[in-house]
Amino acid sequence: MTPNSHDILQSVGINLELHARMTAYNNDLHERTHRSAKNRPAAMALFDTAFHASHGERVAEVFNYRQKGGKSIGTFCIFVPDEIALAADVLPIPLCGGSHWPVDYADKMFPREICPLIRSTFGMVFSNTCPYKKLKDGVVGETTCDAKKKAWDLLGFEVMEVPQKKTEIDRALWISEVQRFRLYVENISGVTVTPARLRETIRLVNDRRRALQVINAFRMLPDPPISGLDALLVSQVALNQDIHAFIDASGVLINELEHRVEQGISAYEGAGPRIFLAGTPSPMGNAKVHYALESSGLRVVADESCTGMRYYRDLVDESHDDLDGMIEAIADRYFSIDCACFSPNTERVENILKTVKEFRVDGLVHNILSFCHAYNVESKAVDRALASVKVPSLKIVTDYSFEDLEQLKVRIESFSELLQSHAQLV
Amino acid sequence: MTPNSHDILQSVGINLELHARMTAYNNDLHERTHRSAKNRPAAMALFDTAFHASHGERVAEVFNYRQKGGKSIGTFCIFVPDEIALAADVLPIPLCGGSHWPVDYADKMFPREICPLIRSTFGMVFSNTCPYKKLKDGVVGETTCDAKKKAWDLLGFEVMEVPQKKTEIDRALWISEVQRFRLYVENISGVTVTPARLRETIRLVNDRRRALQVINAFRMLPDPPISGLDALLVSQVALNQDIHAFIDASGVLINELEHRVEQGISAYEGAGPRIFLAGTPSPMGNAKVHYALESSGLRVVADESCTGMRYYRDLVDESHDDLDGMIEAIADRYFSIDCACFSPNTERVENILKTVKEFRVDGLVHNILSFCHAYNVESKAVDRALASVKVPSLKIVTDYSFEDLEQLKVRIESFSELLQSHAQLV
Repeated sequence: MTPNSHDILQSVGINLELHARMTAYNNDLHERTHRSAKNRPAAMALFDTAFHASHGERVAEVFNYRQKGGKSIGTFCIFVPDEIALAADVLPIPLCGGSHWPVDYADKMFPREICPLIRSTFGMVFSNTCPYKKLKDGVVGETTCDAKKKAWDLLGFEVMEVPQKKTEIDRALWISEVQRFRLYVENISGVTVTPARLRETIRLVNDRRRALQVINAFRMLPDPPISGLDALLVSQVALNQDIHAFIDASGVLINELEHRVEQGISAYEGAGPRIFLAGTPSPMGNAKVHYALESSGLRVVADESCTGMRYYRDLVDESHDDLDGMIEAIADRYFSIDCACFSPNTERVENILKTVKEFRVDGLVHNILSFCHAYNVESKAVDRALASVKVPSLKIVTDYSFEDLEQLKVRIESFSELLQSHAQLV
Repeated sequence: MTPNSHDILQSVGINLELHARMTAYNNDLHERTHRSAKNRPAAMALFDTAFHASHGERVAEVFNYRQKGGKSIGTFCIFVPDEIALAADVLPIPLCGGSHWPVDYADKMFPREICPLIRSTFGMVFSNTCPYKKLKDGVVGETTCDAKKKAWDLLGFEVMEVPQKKTEIDRALWISEVQRFRLYVENISGVTVTPARLRETIRLVNDRRRALQVINAFRMLPDPPISGLDALLVSQVALNQDIHAFIDASGVLINELEHRVEQGISAYEGAGPRIFLAGTPSPMGNAKVHYALESSGLRVVADESCTGMRYYRDLVDESHDDLDGMIEAIADRYFSIDCACFSPNTERVENILKTVKEFRVDGLVHNILSFCHAYNVESKAVDRALASVKVPSLKIVTDYSFEDLEQLKVRIESFSELLQSHAQLV
């Protein structure tokens, strides 16, 4: 952290002593889970730097941008459309926390029986270790799960209603929510969203998705040049880093990955089972299940979550020129997200089966954050579909703490043996 | 149970041995919690009988009705409008389970970390002890919480989408769902809902609500002639018993309650703190928190839940004559429910403050079924409002099991002492 960032942290009311302990905890963990790995692409250093910068230089960037009159909002969950915020000159800052460290600080407001993502995020806020706490002009959440929905009410956030079905009237409701979001960000910045500017930001955000898609596609190869842990880190960084810087860094990584493929360099030493990790997100700071799997010799070759393909699978249609057409295209793109909040959610099962095939997956691991009912119950529907294509699955329900790591590894090793005997039978 | 009911249970595929154990468990519990109480109105015997009949004579009634060509549906949660089902000659049977006994049988499909209401209901279904399992032509659920919503998907139920906000477009969506429900029940029975018939069923279902309102109003008195346990039983029975039989039994009870008031007969021996129980429902079979409170000397004088005022507080406007007007009036009545599924849910806080005053409440107890995030998180918003009127609260998060009863009673006794010292201070 530069002295500049330190001064800025102080000026935004951060508890510096606690914050130093939190970053030390996160850095130690990152060293253990990522930096100690062999065969990493050299370009991953860019993403390691961005990971650390999220509590340092990135904070300074946002601070300086705001000092010059720039506006920003906190956002929760990938249903909040970045394109529209950016087109109104409002910087969206995704706030989902992935660090175990501050979880208990959430007790001030939230029960212990809700997901660690909410508790981590607000544990940081309540302990004054979230550097973005004061660097925003509003926060926008959504209604994708009970605990978040009610949390946003308590905290007085702006709430976008994500409908629960996908009929025509649901779509109309969602479009009206997206239009309302446009007015909300326009009101914050005083900048009107123009068709020309929105066309630009649609392409820009699509470019970020395209970069993530290209990086992800390397994982289809028999010997992926990037590990699951590093692919996750890239996604996590995408949610925090300046979008242009992220696209540039991704370009460097893509070049290196192409090179590695030509030279036959794999990210993995062995040829363990190919795992598809499905379910809830792993926000920056949390890579526990990826680590448990890959340190047990399995290879995470696909991520389905909101820090995986769900974040970048679909692009916004770029063919519209009028404002309403573009807004509808944006609404449709976000409405295509196969979140477990929808009833029914057949698209998710279809997408999972498609990914199983494309990524030549040996087994699926449900990665479910504790107390996330939607993904937990829906895992049964996924398993029914997997049974039809004879792909085994393992359900892991866990939080951010490393206390159950050894237990998880015992279950993962059994699953790995099952996959290997299954491979011989099929 | 009459031999007739026994034969019928056998004919609908009930596991008779398990079913006998379950009813013995429920009957023992009912003896302990209700029938052993002193000072009960004699008319409560009618409701005790109806409680037992829910697994006996009531099953026979539904069976015989169906034998004669009658149609019925299972319904989940009080958002499914009985008026419309009845107007299409379809009998709605609320299915929410309140018995602890079958909870573990739900493991076949559902995680342990979801609410006992869902687990109890499907534990009965999976263990072949739910007598209504085969006595229906469909099941209609809703989207009021994550776990139920995803459960309905797994089970292939018809799902009514309850919107998450209460704006005009949400209301339009809800009206369209209510219209769709009309088509659904018409399709089941082949009976078209006519304005004349719907006017009748609106009045009939309102009559049930009016009966419950009258019984409930007695609890405002300084010495309520009916206990909280018995008032709950009346509500529970309302959800299962034939609606005409229920209204008749309520009339008998109301007459007796009037008499008791004239004669100064209280349901309680002492004058313990007046408690308002708020939060999640206590379906038939579950009266644990009521029992824990009243057996500790507190008096439950108001119930906010879906087995309390939320079920009967609002009537459907009876002034409409045209079909669409009546359907909209029905939709509006159900849309006024102050379920924690809504964001924001300011009506709930307003209703609670109103009830606190009307029922001269000394303290509020949050009764929250385990893993119900919406009511658990929202309890904080309720507490903020209660602080403004200086009413203390206690949060109980629990399931249907009696294992924690003594722990609960220790907390309840401390709360009772707090309320009594608080009363001296105010």
